[in-house]
Amino acid sequence: MSMNSFGHLFRVTTWGESHGPALGATVDGCPPQVPVTPEMLQHWLDKRKPGQNKNTTQRQEPDAVEILSGVFEGQTTGTPIQLMIRNTDQRSRDYGDIVEKFRPGHADITYWQKYGIRDYRGGGRSSARETASRVAAGGVAREAIKAMAPDMSVTGYMVQMGEKKIDRAKFDWDAIGQNDFWCPDADAAKEWEDYLTWLRKDDHNSVGAIIEVVARNVPAGVGAPVYGKLDTDLAAAMMSINAVKGVEIGEGMAAAALTGRDNADEIFMGLNGPEYSSNHAGGILGGISTGQDVVVRFAVKPTSSILSPRKTITKAGEETEIITKGRHDPCVGIRAVPVGEAMMACVMLDHMLLHRGQTGGNRGTIG
Amino acid sequence: MSMNSFGHLFRVTTWGESHGPALGATVDGCPPQVPVTPEMLQHWLDKRKPGQNKNTTQRQEPDAVEILSGVFEGQTTGTPIQLMIRNTDQRSRDYGDIVEKFRPGHADITYWQKYGIRDYRGGGRSSARETASRVAAGGVAREAIKAMAPDMSVTGYMVQMGEKKIDRAKFDWDAIGQNDFWCPDADAAKEWEDYLTWLRKDDHNSVGAIIEVVARNVPAGVGAPVYGKLDTDLAAAMMSINAVKGVEIGEGMAAAALTGRDNADEIFMGLNGPEYSSNHAGGILGGISTGQDVVVRFAVKPTSSILSPRKTITKAGEETEIITKGRHDPCVGIRAVPVGEAMMACVMLDHMLLHRGQTGGNRGTIG
Amino acid sequence: MSMNSFGHLFRVTTWGESHGPALGATVDGCPPQVPVTPEMLQHWLDKRKPGQNKNTTQRQEPDAVEILSGVFEGQTTGTPIQLMIRNTDQRSRDYGDIVEKFRPGHADITYWQKYGIRDYRGGGRSSARETASRVAAGGVAREAIKAMAPDMSVTGYMVQMGEKKIDRAKFDWDAIGQNDFWCPDADAAKEWEDYLTWLRKDDHNSVGAIIEVVARNVPAGVGAPVYGKLDTDLAAAMMSINAVKGVEIGEGMAAAALTGRDNADEIFMGLNGPEYSSNHAGGILGGISTGQDVVVRFAVKPTSSILSPRKTITKAGEETEIITKGRHDPCVGIRAVPVGEAMMACVMLDHMLLHRGQTGGNRGTIG
Amino acid sequence: MSMNSFGHLFRVTTWGESHGPALGATVDGCPPQVPVTPEMLQHWLDKRKPGQNKNTTQRQEPDAVEILSGVFEGQTTGTPIQLMIRNTDQRSRDYGDIVEKFRPGHADITYWQKYGIRDYRGGGRSSARETASRVAAGGVAREAIKAMAPDMSVTGYMVQMGEKKIDRAKFDWDAIGQNDFWCPDADAAKEWEDYLTWLRKDDHNSVGAIIEVVARNVPAGVGAPVYGKLDTDLAAAMMSINAVKGVEIGEGMAAAALTGRDNADEIFMGLNGPEYSSNHAGGILGGISTGQDVVVRFAVKPTSSILSPRKTITKAGEETEIITKGRHDPCVGIRAVPVGEAMMACVMLDHMLLHRGQTGGNRGTIG
Repeated sequence: MSMNSFGHLFRVTTWGESHGPALGATVDGCPPQVPVTPEMLQHWLDKRKPGQNKNTTQRQEPDAVEILSGVFEGQTTGTPIQLMIRNTDQRSRDYGDIVEKFRPGHADITYWQKYGIRDYRGGGRSSARETASRVAAGGVAREAIKAMAPDMSVTGYMVQMGEKKIDRAKFDWDAIGQNDFWCPDADAAKEWEDYLTWLRKDDHNSVGAIIEVVARNVPAGVGAPVYGKLDTDLAAAMMSINAVKGVEIGEGMAAAALTGRDNADEIFMGLNGPEYSSNHAGGILGGISTGQDVVVRFAVKPTSSILSPRKTITKAGEETEIITKGRHDPCVGIRAVPVGEAMMACVMLDHMLLHRGQTGGNRGTIG
Repeated sequence: MSMNSFGHLFRVTTWGESHGPALGATVDGCPPQVPVTPEMLQHWLDKRKPGQNKNTTQRQEPDAVEILSGVFEGQTTGTPIQLMIRNTDQRSRDYGDIVEKFRPGHADITYWQKYGIRDYRGGGRSSARETASRVAAGGVAREAIKAMAPDMSVTGYMVQMGEKKIDRAKFDWDAIGQNDFWCPDADAAKEWEDYLTWLRKDDHNSVGAIIEVVARNVPAGVGAPVYGKLDTDLAAAMMSINAVKGVEIGEGMAAAALTGRDNADEIFMGLNGPEYSSNHAGGILGGISTGQDVVVRFAVKPTSSILSPRKTITKAGEETEIITKGRHDPCVGIRAVPVGEAMMACVMLDHMLLHRGQTGGNRGTIG
Repeated sequence: MSMNSFGHLFRVTTWGESHGPALGATVDGCPPQVPVTPEMLQHWLDKRKPGQNKNTTQRQEPDAVEILSGVFEGQTTGTPIQLMIRNTDQRSRDYGDIVEKFRPGHADITYWQKYGIRDYRGGGRSSARETASRVAAGGVAREAIKAMAPDMSVTGYMVQMGEKKIDRAKFDWDAIGQNDFWCPDADAAKEWEDYLTWLRKDDHNSVGAIIEVVARNVPAGVGAPVYGKLDTDLAAAMMSINAVKGVEIGEGMAAAALTGRDNADEIFMGLNGPEYSSNHAGGILGGISTGQDVVVRFAVKPTSSILSPRKTITKAGEETEIITKGRHDPCVGIRAVPVGEAMMACVMLDHMLLHRGQTGGNRGTIG
Repeated sequence: MSMNSFGHLFRVTTWGESHGPALGATVDGCPPQVPVTPEMLQHWLDKRKPGQNKNTTQRQEPDAVEILSGVFEGQTTGTPIQLMIRNTDQRSRDYGDIVEKFRPGHADITYWQKYGIRDYRGGGRSSARETASRVAAGGVAREAIKAMAPDMSVTGYMVQMGEKKIDRAKFDWDAIGQNDFWCPDADAAKEWEDYLTWLRKDDHNSVGAIIEVVARNVPAGVGAPVYGKLDTDLAAAMMSINAVKGVEIGEGMAAAALTGRDNADEIFMGLNGPEYSSNHAGGILGGISTGQDVVVRFAVKPTSSILSPRKTITKAGEETEIITKGRHDPCVGIRAVPVGEAMMACVMLDHMLLHRGQTGGNRGTIG
């Protein structure tokens, strides 16, 4: 049991602090004979990398990943894969104020209350920098998925920034990679750009967001009942990401407002098996995939590190105010997109491997 | 690793199907010397019990719990507690149609796709009847919590049925136990009653709901970082409940629309430690409790078993229609209230025990 | 994490005390579509059952197993299998002395030191009666193995009682089932019989034993490196059996006295793959099966419950003497044979399932 | 679940291959506020380091450990501790023969049979070099133990090399550190030295050994019943070490030859609680510590990498011979001593933390 691990058979343990010498992920349970190179992983890390445009933190980190074990002559061997990312830009002088003061809405105070000690430099272990490790591990998962289900894809995008939502009618898969926000609605992306510039420069503020991640071409029958449900594991995976406060599968919270008649995804017989009239379920029934798109959404709160003063206390119990300087994301949701994708890739691979171990090869057929 | 277990140190494994001879929970890791009797557990099972009023399924089950192990002379011994509930009302003739047809929105089809065999009687393992086991286990957790943190409480209630929400201004803790819906707003409860009667009798339909569960007087510092976060475990616990499609902590999905300035729960120094101006965080920062109320919400979709015909297919792949007779809840959200409470009690106890094991007794102080 | 569970994918959790209403095993992760009936399991329970001859405890228990879940129409469904055995012969009056006094060499004192409470009736949870649950679970494992590797077998037998060893030259597989000791050497069995009768009747004493368990026709490549080694899991499985003080794989402790030249199992090419000149390794190299017989041995200490007086103390700290009346096995090793078999069957199945989940189907070939 | 991890709350995951860029251990669950420096860990690594004298492999590695995370200003923070050891002496040209041929008695063949790919350089993941990671992790465990039980110690030593055993009458704790074999009998050490020189130089052979590890001043009540027994976890920990074929607790395999009367450790009342007439049990009853010395022994087989030719096959299935050049230990048992100590330290700490989490602070008293 480890508080810093997730996954059953494909098991990822992350380690490292924001301003320590390095951080990384120990990836255990990756099947053998999967082609993995640093370049393959770097592709995904570059998506999450800070300092790429004015909408994300100006911290400059190459986030170059090294593979220290588990890969031999370009292929996984079935042994643990150690992925290490060195921290190069550790301007810890920026964080002086946080040594004694707790930032409201930040884990500063609870780490202190639990452990009686914390690495205050840049949030230490509670920093979103930890998610770089997840993205590296997710890169491995993507390659392993490719070997098992070549048509499967995992794609994330932002559907809401602050109060501004995308227009689903304008949804365009190609637009996602063409703006700074992984936004599938090009018009919304423009609006968000202006809003975020104002928020950052004039309002000294931050804002929340909603990210959606979709797995397509998922085999039916992947997942497990009761506490190891595919949706349970996806919910845990997303909720474990920094700043996440809500997770939805398919209709999500809106399912509460539906009636049974409206919510039923009616079933028809297609050429390659069952087809559905709709996907309220988000591709999962009873914790097991139906073969439809698996759809997850999660909400990210606004970062608590802002330039506006907020009331707080010190370790000594004195009341005071705090302004968080340093280089912070005005909308952490943007960089949460590749993180959400990585978590989904890991969970999907894990359950595809589990399915083999659980059923011993048996499976049901329809038609 | 078990797909039918949850919890780290306080570990619950449930077993049993809707129409098998019995179902139950194996509860491992309960501390010794906790007073536990069948009566204590029965109190909570009676809250969830079907057939209590016209708003829930008319299945008649006494749901009497037997303690088969782990308790000696009225006290837990530290060994596994086996809780068994016999199924007495197994009218399996009601379910004949489901043998060959898959209910839209139900796990019938995915269990078949995964396992190639399923117990079709009443949904088998995928039936919400499984949650009786959780409620029994939750009863044990409540007693163990009492021994460790006597002031702590865990209370659930419904805040939305279909599109009808409670009025937070009318929130009354005492109202919760005084209506059939565990509704804290007495006026809303009356409205829900009429709505549900119409839905059931005239519309042959079902409807979703949102449940909120609150833990009060939680010690600060309980929880863990990264993947073993208190909110991660709560999200997984709630998402594992049948029909749940969304989980929120504190502000939940609405956090996306807030700015950092608005979302900051400012900190002051009270007589007994830190106090907060608000609780957007839902009592958890960085996965660890702040000492404020821990607030979780989850959405339950409408049951897929309705009297209205829906299009579907058979195991043989033929297209057809299905009407689900049998005795089903028009709003499964009602009976999900004690289930959500039970899950929260189990998670809170688990993390209180973990905290002891993780810190070796160390803790931070403020002031 | 559970202290009362073992296995990774095939996970067994036992529960119950010697003199409680029942005991049993929750078996999770059994593949679906495996034929399992109570009769199949009863066959193995009858091997372990007490009161069968004068060499084992005279406690009379039918040890009838009930299947409460996870099996539908004679086949496993992939959901948890609950196996329950009722305790019918609970003559707890025999154990009065143990309420206050600790038996030397027994877990009485350590359970008290850990938990501050214990079920003293018949040893409670520490009684070897717990192993009935293991045998039932092992019966399920055997059927699942049969579905995956039909030629594989798991057989246990006693090779030493007290100082009396079998003569390996007289080893006869058929002899094993033809005496009360599961002894493969018919002559040794006769000698043991006389010895044990004297020990029990005249000496009021008990004696230890060594049991060997062999899995034959094991596929090569089953197991895993480092901490999940097949031999690591076998060692843990055997050491967890009551009274076991040592575990050996292949040469075992005697490997210390060998040289590298003598210990090398030289490899040749047979018709169906590699063949070996010897099996010092016990069928496992680097934690993974070679395809040779997997050979495990374990030593069982003499039971501490004897009719001879031993010095001890009471809970109050007073020095005294104790004689353990009641019905105890003069050589618990006899009934440990089916228990060792059951543990090995569970571990082997678990690793066969794991192999599928770990490799995603990849495997090496030779020749 | 991870095949490369051990421990429940104090959880160690090792990674890395013999000739990759680095290897290490991810240590999760170490309590906060424990003083840990690289120097503290280096002390134990130096005990295991190769090339220190002519009796161990001549591979030259500084085995310098770097702490990459989890320690801040010289103290643990409660977050994962990443320990990395770079491989500097990677003379892989020595291993050319092993690319195609399988060494008898080595994991070469089984890794191939399981994964269909392996890092053949120096044994890859199956190399005993992996144990450096364990020793580093054990160093952390020792410091954490010190903070919880200052009087406790964990000491290992060799009691047998080949057929040559120590004389228990000459046992001297101080002698252990004064010879190349961690031998508590100075006379035996001299004899072993001559024997090993002959074996290495003249006989081109290797030999096995038995190591004993003792934990002294262990608190009573540490451990857990049934499958999480202290002895079960110790057995697994030791069996997971490369080349180990047998594990014993207390009397071990010899317990088989004892009678119940002889094996009983009679109990008396001392000034500080129970005292015992003997320690056949090895300090553990029912899986829980008695407060006596915890005594574990394990047998290490002779290394399979020897200069004498042995018959084997190639990957292509051709019969051939192999001589393993390279730099190998003539008796790997010597360097297994600090590894066994490390494993015991980890297991003891883990169970001391577990005890806190399991009992919620309750405990029994005597007298």
